[in-house]
Amino acid sequence: MKPKEIPTKGPALATKKAPSIVMVNTGDGKGKSTAAFGTAMRAAARGWKVCVIQFVKSGKWKVGEETSATRLGIEWLTIGDGFTWDSKNMDRTEAVARHAWTVSKEKIQSGDYGLVVLDEITYPMNWGWIPTSEVVDVIKKRPRSVNVIATGRDAPAELIELADTVTEMRKVKHAFDRGVRAIRGIDF
Amino acid sequence: MKPKEIPTKGPALATKKAPSIVMVNTGDGKGKSTAAFGTAMRAAARGWKVCVIQFVKSGKWKVGEETSATRLGIEWLTIGDGFTWDSKNMDRTEAVARHAWTVSKEKIQSGDYGLVVLDEITYPMNWGWIPTSEVVDVIKKRPRSVNVIATGRDAPAELIELADTVTEMRKVKHAFDRGVRAIRGIDF
Repeated sequence: MKPKEIPTKGPALATKKAPSIVMVNTGDGKGKSTAAFGTAMRAAARGWKVCVIQFVKSGKWKVGEETSATRLGIEWLTIGDGFTWDSKNMDRTEAVARHAWTVSKEKIQSGDYGLVVLDEITYPMNWGWIPTSEVVDVIKKRPRSVNVIATGRDAPAELIELADTVTEMRKVKHAFDRGVRAIRGIDF
Repeated sequence: MKPKEIPTKGPALATKKAPSIVMVNTGDGKGKSTAAFGTAMRAAARGWKVCVIQFVKSGKWKVGEETSATRLGIEWLTIGDGFTWDSKNMDRTEAVARHAWTVSKEKIQSGDYGLVVLDEITYPMNWGWIPTSEVVDVIKKRPRSVNVIATGRDAPAELIELADTVTEMRKVKHAFDRGVRAIRGIDF
């Protein structure tokens, strides 16, 4: 392969200073949540108060990222009821997701946090359990210093519209599709 | 918007157990490196030895992720010479990148690490500074327990071919394009 040209000119400098931004990680590929957690690592290093709310994972899961995040002083709340296909009571599963949103709203509106991560929030939004218009409104009217990251597939158009930075994690290939099981330490 | 259907059936269970995998995060969007760092958080939580080698960032940069990673016991090596457009001596910049690869090769081949992250390695590969065939060969013949994540735009085809899981981080929009400066605690 012919080598690519070595860039000798950088991009134009950005000049505007935003008090905070909204990021959305969506798409069918890997890395939506892990990228949010990587950003949480940065925020924690700067001494910010950081909160991660997980909308699908339940407290029964003990995942590696939670252990490390807690060690870094990140507040980690798993307020999900697990996968919907494992639900024995969908009304309860829906109620748990609504509760996760109530808590998230308080965290955002308190203004205490430099970063609030709404992990996998798009699922309960898309199922009609949490009103998208309310999520968008709360994020739009947030205290100026609060950065927000929302993750999950099929991010609603209103959320994408509101966000400053949106990435689609597109699956090129995934070991799982070849029948390879999730690896403890890599996938959870 | 009409709510999406709530999934009541999970995906087929994966049955194969891989001793380790190779992941590639590529594309022009945000989250390639941060997703790798999020995975490093997981690996560290499981007590694995983890090493991150940065191929572009120089030791002069003091980024948040490094502070947090070091706190988690992750070995963090910035063996880059900075952006090429800031280089005063491109031969030196190339030599520094080659050295980063020599170190990475040793780390991978030692078998001591559960995870080795080759951050932004695609750039020196694409510029012809580090031979892609050698990188692919070293990863292919790695000790079985070593997981590898490579990040950067325009991942070479041979690297994608070799990888188990590949995600393209596609930019839908980025605050920077509206002139918004990088935020300390979010972007670095």
